[in-house]
Amino acid sequence: MVDLVTFGEAMLRLSPPDFKRLEQTTSLDINIGGAELNVAVGVSRLGMPSAWVSKLPDNPLGRMIGNKARELGVDISHVLWEKDGRAGLYFLEFGATPRASSVLYDRTASSFSTIQPGELDWGKILDGARCLHLTGITPALSPSAAETTREALQKARAMRCQVSLDLNYRAKLWSPEAARETLEPLMDFVDILITTQGDTRTILDLEADSDLDLAGVLLDRFPLEVAALSFREGDSVWKCRWSAMARTPEATYSTRMYDVDIVDQVGRGDSFAAGFLYGYLGAGDVQRGLDFGAAFAALKHSFPGDFNWCTRDEVEALLAGPRPGVSR
Amino acid sequence: MVDLVTFGEAMLRLSPPDFKRLEQTTSLDINIGGAELNVAVGVSRLGMPSAWVSKLPDNPLGRMIGNKARELGVDISHVLWEKDGRAGLYFLEFGATPRASSVLYDRTASSFSTIQPGELDWGKILDGARCLHLTGITPALSPSAAETTREALQKARAMRCQVSLDLNYRAKLWSPEAARETLEPLMDFVDILITTQGDTRTILDLEADSDLDLAGVLLDRFPLEVAALSFREGDSVWKCRWSAMARTPEATYSTRMYDVDIVDQVGRGDSFAAGFLYGYLGAGDVQRGLDFGAAFAALKHSFPGDFNWCTRDEVEALLAGPRPGVSR
Amino acid sequence: MVDLVTFGEAMLRLSPPDFKRLEQTTSLDINIGGAELNVAVGVSRLGMPSAWVSKLPDNPLGRMIGNKARELGVDISHVLWEKDGRAGLYFLEFGATPRASSVLYDRTASSFSTIQPGELDWGKILDGARCLHLTGITPALSPSAAETTREALQKARAMRCQVSLDLNYRAKLWSPEAARETLEPLMDFVDILITTQGDTRTILDLEADSDLDLAGVLLDRFPLEVAALSFREGDSVWKCRWSAMARTPEATYSTRMYDVDIVDQVGRGDSFAAGFLYGYLGAGDVQRGLDFGAAFAALKHSFPGDFNWCTRDEVEALLAGPRPGVSR
Amino acid sequence: MVDLVTFGEAMLRLSPPDFKRLEQTTSLDINIGGAELNVAVGVSRLGMPSAWVSKLPDNPLGRMIGNKARELGVDISHVLWEKDGRAGLYFLEFGATPRASSVLYDRTASSFSTIQPGELDWGKILDGARCLHLTGITPALSPSAAETTREALQKARAMRCQVSLDLNYRAKLWSPEAARETLEPLMDFVDILITTQGDTRTILDLEADSDLDLAGVLLDRFPLEVAALSFREGDSVWKCRWSAMARTPEATYSTRMYDVDIVDQVGRGDSFAAGFLYGYLGAGDVQRGLDFGAAFAALKHSFPGDFNWCTRDEVEALLAGPRPGVSR
Amino acid sequence: MVDLVTFGEAMLRLSPPDFKRLEQTTSLDINIGGAELNVAVGVSRLGMPSAWVSKLPDNPLGRMIGNKARELGVDISHVLWEKDGRAGLYFLEFGATPRASSVLYDRTASSFSTIQPGELDWGKILDGARCLHLTGITPALSPSAAETTREALQKARAMRCQVSLDLNYRAKLWSPEAARETLEPLMDFVDILITTQGDTRTILDLEADSDLDLAGVLLDRFPLEVAALSFREGDSVWKCRWSAMARTPEATYSTRMYDVDIVDQVGRGDSFAAGFLYGYLGAGDVQRGLDFGAAFAALKHSFPGDFNWCTRDEVEALLAGPRPGVSR
Amino acid sequence: MVDLVTFGEAMLRLSPPDFKRLEQTTSLDINIGGAELNVAVGVSRLGMPSAWVSKLPDNPLGRMIGNKARELGVDISHVLWEKDGRAGLYFLEFGATPRASSVLYDRTASSFSTIQPGELDWGKILDGARCLHLTGITPALSPSAAETTREALQKARAMRCQVSLDLNYRAKLWSPEAARETLEPLMDFVDILITTQGDTRTILDLEADSDLDLAGVLLDRFPLEVAALSFREGDSVWKCRWSAMARTPEATYSTRMYDVDIVDQVGRGDSFAAGFLYGYLGAGDVQRGLDFGAAFAALKHSFPGDFNWCTRDEVEALLAGPRPGVSR
Repeated sequence: MVDLVTFGEAMLRLSPPDFKRLEQTTSLDINIGGAELNVAVGVSRLGMPSAWVSKLPDNPLGRMIGNKARELGVDISHVLWEKDGRAGLYFLEFGATPRASSVLYDRTASSFSTIQPGELDWGKILDGARCLHLTGITPALSPSAAETTREALQKARAMRCQVSLDLNYRAKLWSPEAARETLEPLMDFVDILITTQGDTRTILDLEADSDLDLAGVLLDRFPLEVAALSFREGDSVWKCRWSAMARTPEATYSTRMYDVDIVDQVGRGDSFAAGFLYGYLGAGDVQRGLDFGAAFAALKHSFPGDFNWCTRDEVEALLAGPRPGVSR
Repeated sequence: MVDLVTFGEAMLRLSPPDFKRLEQTTSLDINIGGAELNVAVGVSRLGMPSAWVSKLPDNPLGRMIGNKARELGVDISHVLWEKDGRAGLYFLEFGATPRASSVLYDRTASSFSTIQPGELDWGKILDGARCLHLTGITPALSPSAAETTREALQKARAMRCQVSLDLNYRAKLWSPEAARETLEPLMDFVDILITTQGDTRTILDLEADSDLDLAGVLLDRFPLEVAALSFREGDSVWKCRWSAMARTPEATYSTRMYDVDIVDQVGRGDSFAAGFLYGYLGAGDVQRGLDFGAAFAALKHSFPGDFNWCTRDEVEALLAGPRPGVSR
Repeated sequence: MVDLVTFGEAMLRLSPPDFKRLEQTTSLDINIGGAELNVAVGVSRLGMPSAWVSKLPDNPLGRMIGNKARELGVDISHVLWEKDGRAGLYFLEFGATPRASSVLYDRTASSFSTIQPGELDWGKILDGARCLHLTGITPALSPSAAETTREALQKARAMRCQVSLDLNYRAKLWSPEAARETLEPLMDFVDILITTQGDTRTILDLEADSDLDLAGVLLDRFPLEVAALSFREGDSVWKCRWSAMARTPEATYSTRMYDVDIVDQVGRGDSFAAGFLYGYLGAGDVQRGLDFGAAFAALKHSFPGDFNWCTRDEVEALLAGPRPGVSR
Repeated sequence: MVDLVTFGEAMLRLSPPDFKRLEQTTSLDINIGGAELNVAVGVSRLGMPSAWVSKLPDNPLGRMIGNKARELGVDISHVLWEKDGRAGLYFLEFGATPRASSVLYDRTASSFSTIQPGELDWGKILDGARCLHLTGITPALSPSAAETTREALQKARAMRCQVSLDLNYRAKLWSPEAARETLEPLMDFVDILITTQGDTRTILDLEADSDLDLAGVLLDRFPLEVAALSFREGDSVWKCRWSAMARTPEATYSTRMYDVDIVDQVGRGDSFAAGFLYGYLGAGDVQRGLDFGAAFAALKHSFPGDFNWCTRDEVEALLAGPRPGVSR
Repeated sequence: MVDLVTFGEAMLRLSPPDFKRLEQTTSLDINIGGAELNVAVGVSRLGMPSAWVSKLPDNPLGRMIGNKARELGVDISHVLWEKDGRAGLYFLEFGATPRASSVLYDRTASSFSTIQPGELDWGKILDGARCLHLTGITPALSPSAAETTREALQKARAMRCQVSLDLNYRAKLWSPEAARETLEPLMDFVDILITTQGDTRTILDLEADSDLDLAGVLLDRFPLEVAALSFREGDSVWKCRWSAMARTPEATYSTRMYDVDIVDQVGRGDSFAAGFLYGYLGAGDVQRGLDFGAAFAALKHSFPGDFNWCTRDEVEALLAGPRPGVSR
Repeated sequence: MVDLVTFGEAMLRLSPPDFKRLEQTTSLDINIGGAELNVAVGVSRLGMPSAWVSKLPDNPLGRMIGNKARELGVDISHVLWEKDGRAGLYFLEFGATPRASSVLYDRTASSFSTIQPGELDWGKILDGARCLHLTGITPALSPSAAETTREALQKARAMRCQVSLDLNYRAKLWSPEAARETLEPLMDFVDILITTQGDTRTILDLEADSDLDLAGVLLDRFPLEVAALSFREGDSVWKCRWSAMARTPEATYSTRMYDVDIVDQVGRGDSFAAGFLYGYLGAGDVQRGLDFGAAFAALKHSFPGDFNWCTRDEVEALLAGPRPGVSR
């Protein structure tokens, strides 16, 4: 039995090395990623058992995705395997200011997008779990994926399993209007909302003067127990400042701002979610969740790939104080 | 204006380095390939102007495919560019005896498969060309691709442009029955048939005691001006013996048998077609076509990727005699 | 609960790419390997649940070893983690005839070598398992490792769990005399013996005119239920012929001889053990064990690394007949 | 027919990966580059047809240079091929502050340096072209290359084809005095001058308080229709600020200043020239030329290699506003 | 005969490429390094003959270490070769702010750690040398290594060979208390002390308000002829500011502060030592030593690996003035 | 003082990885090689001190060549360093049957080719040496290089230093006639001739029915003390059989025939020369020279690069008997 269950698609991520464009490259580096798998990996690295629920093709690419989840300690026993399907792919070009990093999705007709309500036994999957984590990406993948998301939410509610949602808007998958129409009704099932100012504005059409105010608006509008917002400062592709805040109906929380050198920023939001859930679910403490979330996300920028390879010891060392240039 | 026009899909070929399986690898080498593009590249390398007609997505992957055709001197001015489509992909694992090399196609819903009759101006494309080369793969990709193939054949016939066809059966794309139903009716448009004993049996349900006899059966059955069959001997993944024969209604032709070390066998049949067409169309001489075809194909085994990077000088040197271990 | 439990050390294997010597290389490829882990991986790939029991340092290298076992589906929940220990390493140079491939062990003072009787709860580990698989390497690593091996054997016997042993002589770890003194007394606990003519002669000082006769001598001498011997023919580093035979008190069994191109031969014996145990334990059928063992081992030669990445489908396809050069 | 013709040498650029020195490296990355080819590539990427005129050895290295020009869409039909010549090479070490990146030329006795007046049919080459682009590098390569440059200029003038010149001083090729003696007389043929403050001072011995004033001095001194100067700020090898200005007899023009992360700065000046020519020749609009030139050059810093792989869409998106960290 | 002799262990340094963690990587880049060898290499690059004294296993890894010292011009004729020993290793992960780079030592039971007083003929080794350079790392490796260090110091004193010591505290090898107990008594043999504020505090328990004051305290406390302290400013893993100061009983010296982009900071302190010794021993001039030391160390940050591949010409060019972005 | 002195050019060898053509590759692997340096390296690896005499540019490429000679233990103290010269290069494509491996020289105007009689102090260089080894390549590089070769031969004769010559015909450097005219007169200075049937026929226009007879003809014709001929059998690029024979005026000698897998055949002839000289000069025993030469050359085929990385122990183990597939 695991503490956290996540549900969504994971893809092969194919990226040219050394800042090459796709048109320039003669090889592609492979990583595995997908927002919900990234979160499952994150909490597993921190020491909390997790499972990832998905649908994969029963071919070498599908198996590779499953293998890598397993490598990081994530339970994949509930994954569905489709004969003759295809694995979702995404191509990632790393940029340098003023050229942004760029994603080219190739997930049309993927095995995951064929998922149907009724295919997964949510009662068994959520049995004993403390939290189900979802993102706003899954419902964008197909109408049946959106329905399956709703199915999962309803079952979690029925089983009194907490629900966490990261809004995660993807402009290359759907329009703001489509996202709002699908996601807004799901907000009633959400206990823990993880988001950013931008995604909140785009998807929920809500704005406020500050992250603090926006969190207040969210708490007013939806039956949340906590809203956590991360934010970055700076326009450079290679450098940023990163922090987060959280608000419950009772209190507001802030944490340290991190100066960050960026090796690979993909998955930083997922690391924030993972760290927050680890700290919050583990200790029932919003401050600890926020501290873990922000530190874990800051450290994520230093690893190639979507996954966060930090250990809990390293997060705690960062929370405890500054580190030298080389540890030896 | 070009001498040879080919029509078909080309894909990104993604292969693990160093005999790794897909599940093992952390990077993929990129090559571009597709039977018809490979033939256009081959004749271009040998010095005969060629064009490749296709449909590609207007994204970095589509552009990469077009760029590489251009790099090898192939005219791509008739390629159609689709907004929002996807490029066909195939994953290739290199094997070692007793494990065969293996292809995993990922070309579902590719831009090429959406091609429709009427999209291409065949009159303009074939204007001045001596030959249109097709393969049995294109009609397997979608019903509309099959119709477009028929459209091209009819136009070539009408314009008195010669037609070459390589049967090229692909078991991972369709069944023998489906292939036969689609391809057999097209045989009436074909002047030059390039095939193997296996493909002929599978697609046309024709057999004979020898390649020679089989070529005779083909010439009896269809209005061909020449049939050319290549063959290999040996079961090793890393080594084979390779040759070919040809037959016209008037005569039979054979050429040298080559001992071959295999670096990459993909595209050897296309190199045979290219060499044969170069020699036959250029000099109107079946023997020269056969000699060039077999030598060019034998040399192809030594290059990574689907393309044949030989020069005409090298083919002629091989035809002229044996070569030493190192030329220096 | 798993069907097969294996016990032993796994190491980081560090090898220069492209046939370079260690002195030449500027990088090292990493694989994970160790005879007993290789067997656990093999049966897991074939579909039989397995666990690997070991002792690893709680540092990045130890975690990497555990991760990779997990990636391949092997249960590592019984692995012991040592603070401040070191991971065993081995350096592997790939050769070309007449230069043999060569191993340089660097496993002195590894965490595994500190293992002590009493550290592992064998009752819990073997609970529900059908077989415990060991090799002759583990007792060579330290006196306490030898004692722990004996402890495991005794517990397996007591729990009526079958015992499989692969003799596996390693000349760089101990002398034939030391091996004999340690291993011969353990033979009384063994049900399934997996070996070669060479290892049997070196360790047990037994010889016979043929593998068949030698298996007979082994069955006479020790209380075995089956003895399985693999053998190769040919002196080339890049090519061999490979087969195996088995004998029970009632019958003898042989299987096909495979022509093999060698990408990486390390772990082929372990693949034979895994295939044999999978077939024999699963179906209770020596012939099936032998067929699976030899085919799985033949295919192993085609994968870089110690692990066998074949699927059961591929083994069965090989058993069913020959394969073409490229499957597409 | 093409809009822009450029004339000069292109070389294989060989650079150690990962900031290694040449003495440290065991491999070299290959790129193709040369100021005039870089410009032809740049305008081709932006959508304006271009041709590059040069002289290359008819060997694999010469063919590689030609292939890559073709890959990027540049017409190479006027390139001369020399039997038994050699391709120019240059070795590039990437630095990090305070170590500058460094070029080691190895272009002695290259095929290009043997070029002679009369070898190229400038009338045919420039037929229909709107502009001939040259740089101050070509005349430095050999006396006969300087004469051929003059020949091209005279023919362009005679054909009323506009002439663009980028001064481009190379200290490792010649002294300021030699450069001045050769280049100053050519200025009378130039319509569009592209330069920097430094190159103008070194080669033409002209100085002024500002770029604006210097452009004025140039317009006074030579019969130019426009002078465009680019400039950077900052001493870091990995970061700079980049902009440009332009002046005609009637007006002055400025554009945005870009903060730039540097992956590879080689070819940024050529990208400025390409962007400027694309905008200016295409729309006859200095401001648009300057905007395109500066944006295209800023983006160039983000691509490895001498070529600029940007698309026109990307340049226009940058001109339209800021971009996020990851586009997805 | 050489000018400088250094004594200590050198290891294979194994580091994941591209900022990967050890757990992520599938290959390791090899460099050779060790503080004392790094110094010998540095002075050799600058043009002063040097020898490195050590003990290595007579196996491929030991030979690789010796080869690389030789490649850089260092005399290894006094190195001891041990049959059956092991080479020290260290694993290095490159970080990005806020994750520090991190070293995992694997040097237990290395050949060097078995070194004994009496094994080396110091009289012969130091014959003709001007200086013996040691660091605080060697005595941490084993009691016998500490004794051999003392033996060397006594012999140097007896032979009136100058002694240089770099304190170099390594927290992963010993505690501050153990370091102090061993190193403090050796300070009486030291003529040239090279250190940092941090190491001085940790090992010698000395503090002062400034580097200047601390150098004064050191000169008061120990019979030094010069103390040189380097320092860096800034917390980023990828960027710093670097300088140094020195003090003799008569005077104080300072040098330029360098802005530094960090490719690889390991060995910068050793480069400072090498540059200082080269300048000071060569010209007998503290200012020149300090200038060379700081410039050479600043440049070291730009090279991957522990060694400094700069030439003396490049150091002198840096001392002479600023450098452009690309030298061509 | 060294036992063997060799004299000639060494080059950077640049080769595409993975059997790519030059036109295909995006990177080049670097090795250092040159027949005479290869021989110096070979005898050094076997334990006999050697020096290599040459002329190199004083730039990073020249230094790299010198460094690598030093890495392998070769004395380079007599190498001349030229300001502003260029290093010789050669590009090597690896083939696969029926495509031969191919060399493209780029050594025009190299520093070595400018060498002049009088530049080297042969008296000092040969002082104490037992043998001077030359090849037929050096005189092909320039007239002054041919004169310097003659100068060296005369001085060796005068100093009673033995002379070894490997004829080594290079068709890409000169014609058979030019080679004969230059080399035949030098034969009077040669004591030890190392050659093949092919080179002897091409250069000296001598033929015979067998290697044995040819050696007899050579001994009749020139004042040799021994002639050693190596030969290979088989046309495959990846496999051959290799052996050698030798003849003195008194006796004939043969050695074992080796089956060889070919990783890289370049330098095998140099390895034969090195092994022969090591065995013959060391022990004064032709049979031992021949045995060492053939075994060392057979082993050379297994190493990438021109150099032979074998140790004497490995040669002796091969001479002592067959080796297993993996040594562990």
